[in-house]
Amino acid sequence: MTDTARPDTAAYGPTERTVPTRARQRASYDREAVHAILDESYLCHLGFVRDGAPVVLPTLYARVGEALYVHGSTGSRPLRATGESDPGLPVCLTVTHVDGLVLARSAFHHSINYRSVVVHGTARQVTDPEEKNLALDAIVDQVVAGRSADSRPANARELAATAVIRVDLAEASAKARTGGPNDEPEDMGLPHWAGVVPVSRTYGAPVPSADLADSVALPDYLAARA
Amino acid sequence: MTDTARPDTAAYGPTERTVPTRARQRASYDREAVHAILDESYLCHLGFVRDGAPVVLPTLYARVGEALYVHGSTGSRPLRATGESDPGLPVCLTVTHVDGLVLARSAFHHSINYRSVVVHGTARQVTDPEEKNLALDAIVDQVVAGRSADSRPANARELAATAVIRVDLAEASAKARTGGPNDEPEDMGLPHWAGVVPVSRTYGAPVPSADLADSVALPDYLAARA
Repeated sequence: MTDTARPDTAAYGPTERTVPTRARQRASYDREAVHAILDESYLCHLGFVRDGAPVVLPTLYARVGEALYVHGSTGSRPLRATGESDPGLPVCLTVTHVDGLVLARSAFHHSINYRSVVVHGTARQVTDPEEKNLALDAIVDQVVAGRSADSRPANARELAATAVIRVDLAEASAKARTGGPNDEPEDMGLPHWAGVVPVSRTYGAPVPSADLADSVALPDYLAARA
Repeated sequence: MTDTARPDTAAYGPTERTVPTRARQRASYDREAVHAILDESYLCHLGFVRDGAPVVLPTLYARVGEALYVHGSTGSRPLRATGESDPGLPVCLTVTHVDGLVLARSAFHHSINYRSVVVHGTARQVTDPEEKNLALDAIVDQVVAGRSADSRPANARELAATAVIRVDLAEASAKARTGGPNDEPEDMGLPHWAGVVPVSRTYGAPVPSADLADSVALPDYLAARA
């Protein structure tokens, strides 16, 4: 027994499916690196298997410690397969940030700069009401920090209509590419422009609902973001 | 026999797995709608099944007519399973644009505005040299239109190291959410801000490689983008 699976270690234990077949130098199992990439977004691509074929759906998520939470309608396909009595649904959650377009002198060395996290695990439905409430708050706060405290909490009917699944962060890896193009030495004299076009996700000025009362001011947590 | 599967029809034929279990009014099978969402990006999340479990990896792609092309190292996991003699690999390719954060008065009605395309299909390796070259050019041009003509084409060694897979656009659907929050009538008087924070992917000024000769100017196709 090694202690690589213990949550208080600094890294996730690499497994056969988290060690990439190529560009291994870009992979990291460091918890802080994985958390940082997860915390910068709120939309993952959730993969599961249905009738033997893969399904990938964009889904909101939140990270709370060493767990990821995803919510959805109780009638949605992945959630119906994660009932309390089930063994759980094998899933893969992937989060990707695009940071730059990498233009090399050769077509072959074109690439993008990115940071991604891939989490393999088993999705299980959250049935404890306290954990479910905490997870739902976390999903709202993952999108806009501080927002859950400034909205009406879910009522009993809404809670019943919402399913939350948890995936523990145990088998996770981060991967990143940074820097400029890696052209071949013999291509350096070619007349093609080479470099990086920075890419980022940006947020515009908040647009109030047409029916918002004039007395409701833009909250600080949104003013700071814009 | 209906003609919904014919490539010259305006829509993809809905199938059991492209009809969502909920929010069906957000789904579209219109080819132009699907193409427009695909053409605005270059990064998909590619899902496949490995040892019975789902794997989701961020991957560059290009659309050419009614085909999607993805490339990778010949040693990469999904590509090794798509050899010429194989029946092909079942895949799901998903492309998502985040357009806005939707803040409702109630936690339950928080959402995001997005446009996504989900493609189900079978990945097959491209072995015809002409199609492979066309696909590789298309992948470069998907990232920056016009770029493939302004870079050194792949040589024989690079072509041999690169595998290209094709997924035909036959079972595809688009889904989108637009507009403001859909709060409950009884929540309209609550003192919480409600509205949308616009989100977009933006491109910064191109950063030339440190080793780029001063004589190489920024090409028009990049200047227009910045």
